[in-house]
Formats: sequence, structure tokens, C-alpha cells
Amino acid sequence: MRGMTPERETRYRDGLRSAASAGRAILEAGGSAMDAAIAAVVDMENGGTFNAGLGSCLTSAGTVEMDAAVMRGSDRGIGAVASITSVANPVELSRAVMDRTPHCMLAADGALAFAREQGFALRENFPPPSRLAEWEGKRARLKARAAGKTLEQGLAELGGVLGDQEDEVRHDPVGDDHDTVGAVAFDSAGGVAAAVSTGGIWLKMPGRVGDSPLPGAGFWAVDAAGASVATGTGESLMRVMICKHVIDRIESHGDPERACQEAVELLEKHFGPNQGGVIAVGPRGGLGWAINTNGMGRSMWRGGMKDAAVAVWPDEDWDRAR
Amino acid sequence: MRGMTPERETRYRDGLRSAASAGRAILEAGGSAMDAAIAAVVDMENGGTFNAGLGSCLTSAGTVEMDAAVMRGSDRGIGAVASITSVANPVELSRAVMDRTPHCMLAADGALAFAREQGFALRENFPPPSRLAEWEGKRARLKARAAGKTLEQGLAELGGVLGDQEDEVRHDPVGDDHDTVGAVAFDSAGGVAAAVSTGGIWLKMPGRVGDSPLPGAGFWAVDAAGASVATGTGESLMRVMICKHVIDRIESHGDPERACQEAVELLEKHFGPNQGGVIAVGPRGGLGWAINTNGMGRSMWRGGMKDAAVAVWPDEDWDRAR
Repeated sequence: MRGMTPERETRYRDGLRSAASAGRAILEAGGSAMDAAIAAVVDMENGGTFNAGLGSCLTSAGTVEMDAAVMRGSDRGIGAVASITSVANPVELSRAVMDRTPHCMLAADGALAFAREQGFALRENFPPPSRLAEWEGKRARLKARAAGKTLEQGLAELGGVLGDQEDEVRHDPVGDDHDTVGAVAFDSAGGVAAAVSTGGIWLKMPGRVGDSPLPGAGFWAVDAAGASVATGTGESLMRVMICKHVIDRIESHGDPERACQEAVELLEKHFGPNQGGVIAVGPRGGLGWAINTNGMGRSMWRGGMKDAAVAVWPDEDWDRAR
Repeated sequence: MRGMTPERETRYRDGLRSAASAGRAILEAGGSAMDAAIAAVVDMENGGTFNAGLGSCLTSAGTVEMDAAVMRGSDRGIGAVASITSVANPVELSRAVMDRTPHCMLAADGALAFAREQGFALRENFPPPSRLAEWEGKRARLKARAAGKTLEQGLAELGGVLGDQEDEVRHDPVGDDHDTVGAVAFDSAGGVAAAVSTGGIWLKMPGRVGDSPLPGAGFWAVDAAGASVATGTGESLMRVMICKHVIDRIESHGDPERACQEAVELLEKHFGPNQGGVIAVGPRGGLGWAINTNGMGRSMWRGGMKDAAVAVWPDEDWDRAR
């Protein structure tokens, strides 16, 4: 995050604003919180800038395995997919699991078969070659580090060519970009919803499932309480059920901002700094966010605002951004 | 559950007692709560009587896809596997995910590759032919019911032969046996642990993941608070985070029995009767259980008891069983 080039930061902020604007369009047209949250996440899956959909990071085998989920506050409806390949919009597939099956979660080949049966778009030549070059760089860095060698030595051994990616790889320690995307929304009927999508973590073991598709961990949404989504080290987030904790805290005192801070404090108490962050919307549309990392892109829009507000760094709060 | 033949009920009670005795042996030898909970679940995976391991129910495609998980209260360590085939003891594989990978959950092919790499035993000719006959009967029943036909007509169309399974199929409505197995344990050092394993639900869609491998839903364990595991309709259990709720309630008032009842009341409030049940151990080794179904096999042993106690029906409580 820190160490992003100015070009990447611009692309990143544009991607965040675009996602919030996609959600805004749904809400302004009278759509539901669920539709708005999904629209925002689809926008990020398609943009290629974030670690979800097109921009998903790769497993240790150089493959893409994505997780995604949705939750609708009105009936606690849940749809989730885990460890899926090639589906263009995993968050849309999650919604189909919720709406068109008797189940809440489908994984791997079963999820892909369902996607095919339902006519979902699949990506071809996925991951793209540029992503594979980045993968080689990360592997080289990891192997070099493990062997106590320089990155140049590691790259030479792998025969990898980084090209344009080289600067980014050098600045981006392996596994240190958890740009899982998520959105929460609150609609004019008072409904809340959460949606989340991710490629997981760089060089994860094939089959690894993180917090994103796990209810209570990567997302949670209950009408009259609130909705929350998380990003960060899934293996820590799930061990404190961070999103369920956020919503439980909102139910206790009503303040989404305080609830997010309390949840991240709990996370830090158990697992130390640099673990992740959460965003939340409360039962009357109030917003909260908190992180214990060096940055987390976030964007928000509410009725009456001319344009979506965007922020990335810890010291950049909603007020300054608005 | 109701409608079990006397022979099946005997086998069922024997299986429960055997599992508790396997856990007891570990604890008497000074082993940890984690080892004891896993030993109990391994025993049920191997027995063939329950819906886990050898006795797993089948998907709509006639395949076995199992979910399992473990959680250690001391450090909230989690290991889980989802949608795995052929591994003899999914709960042991879950433990390996916790102890020998940087991750908490592996799914499908990635989990199987890890199992092979770690030398885990795989079952051959799995599912066994007897199970496939039962599968044909269930499919016939489901199709006949959907088409408004009698079971005989449905069977005739499928050409299925039930043989010895026929009585059981007739008494056992499709999807009404959620014999997910689980165990909680409390050791002499005050540690708690949870372990769970399942074949899921009969005729589930391939890839369907239930509550069992989802932290907070199918299991939860935190030292000085307690451990809990659940069984029932996963799609309902995960929408109230039932095991996390049990432990939160124990943290609030200290009584595992009351906590289990409160959790099942919450489940019933949202999803009606016949959804499932939970068992729990509290921070000082007290036990609790609650169901809103017509039965749930359970067994318990504590230091000083001559033999493990077993109960199946709702009106059969720990006291009567002891």
C-alpha cells in the first residue's frame, strides 16, 4: 500500500470512486441495498485494479481461485462461492447461489458447473500474461528471501522477466496487498446489504479459502442492525469473526464508527498490527471504518452528495474526504 | 430420526458411546482437549453409522463431498476442509491444515492435493455400493414426490433396487437426517476444543458447503469461554452464527446449558422448528446441549464416570442418561 506509485494511486482512487458511483446509480434509481452493493463490487471485479475478478492475485501454482459472497439484511440471505476459477463476476454468482439454489455456499468445480448451467460469463486466457509475469516476480522474491539471496539472483534462477511490473514487484512485498473488495449499502427502505469479492492472497496454496466467503468473518448484514465487510489477513479476521463483531457492537451502542474501531482493536489484541480493516453501515445509514494497516482504499456516497468521496490513507477520514 | 429401527438405534447408541470413549482415553492419558475431540470424531468417521467419513451421505451426483473442521481454544487455531472426496478422516486433515499450513481452510482439489502430499489415507471404491443403492432410493423418492407419484413408480422409472435399505429409505425422508458429527472437550489444563465432520446433506448440489467447516457456524472454541459444535440445516445455522452465539452467551452468564437453549431459540425464531442442535462445554467443564428437532444423538464422559452416558431423544437428558 505505502510505496504505491503516483500512477497507481490515481488508478486506485478512480477505481474506488467508480465503484461507489455504480452503487449510487442503483440507489438513485430506487434500487435495493443488495443491488447497490453488488453493482459496486462488480465494478471493482471488472476494473482490474483491485484483487478481485480481473485483477485477482494468483496461487502458488499460478492459477486464479476467487472467493465471493453476498448477504441481504432483510432475511439474512447468504450466497457465497469459494475457490472458483474463470467466472467473470464471482459476486454475481454468489447472488445466484442465494436466489436460485437451496444452499448458501458452493465451492470449486460444483460452483463452476452451476455458473455454466446458469449461463454466467467466464474469462478466457485467465490469468492474463501480465499477471503471470507478476507471479514469477513474486515467486522469485519469495524464493530469494527464503534462501537469503537477492531478488536478482532469484529471478535469474527462475528465468523470469518482469518488464513493466518490476518496480511494482520490488515495492510490493509478497502477500502485502490484500485488496479484497467489498461494499455495504443502506437503501431508502432501510434495508442493508453486504457484498465482497477477492482473489485471496498472493501465492496462497491452491484450495485456500480466506475470510471473504465466510459469514461473520468476511461479511455480515442484518436489517435494523447494519452491514459490514472486511479486508486483510483472512486467517486472522475469521478467528475473531470480525464482521459479526462489528454488527454485534452496533446493536449494543448504535455507533458504526465506534463498532469498527472496537472490532479492529479486538483483531489487533489477538493478532497484532497490520492485519486488516472493516467498513460498516449502521441501522440508520451511518458509516464507519477502521484499519490497523498502513492504508485501505474506501469510497462513500450518500443522498445529496454531488460525487462519491474517496480516501486511502489512515489519516484521511470521511470528513476530510467529503 | 424418529422411525429408526431398533437395530439402527442400538448401532447408533453404540457408535456414540464408542466416540465418547475414544475421547475419554485421550483425556485419561493426559492428552489435550484438541486430541480428545479429534479422537471422538475420527471414531465416528470410521464407524459408518453417522453422516461423516465412511457413512457420508451422497450428493445429487452420487458422489461424496465432505466438510470438517477443528478449533483449538488456546489460540483460536482453526483448520477446516470443504468439499473433499475420498480422504478417510477429514477431521485429521483439518488438523493438518491448522498445524502444517499458513492457512485455515482448504477446499476441494487443493485440499486433496495437500492430503496426498501429507500422506493421508484415502478411501477406495468410495462411496460403497450399499450407499449408492440408498442414493438411488432417495433420488426415486425425491423425483416421485416432485412429480406427485408413489415411491414405487419413481423406483420403477429409475430401475433402482433398494434391497436391505428399502425400509430405511421409506422411513427416512430425503434430507431429514443431518447426522453431522462433532465433539467438544475440556482438558485438565482448562483448555477447550471443538471438532466436526460431515458428509453434508443428502442429494446436495455438488460443491455445496454447509455450516460444518465455517467458523462460528459449525464450531467455535475459545479458552476461558467454551467450545461448541452444531448439527442440522447448515443453511439456517450459518445465518445465526449459532456456535459463536453459544460461546458469546456463555461469556455473558457462564451457563452452557442455558446458552445452548438460547442459541436454539434464536435459530427457531428465525427459521422455525426442526432446524438443528448444538452441544457445548463451558469454561469450567460444564456441559450443555439443545435441539429443536425430534432427536440428536449425544454422549458424554467426565472424570470419575465409569462409562460414557448416551442419549438420543429430546426428553432424554444428561441426568437421566448418567
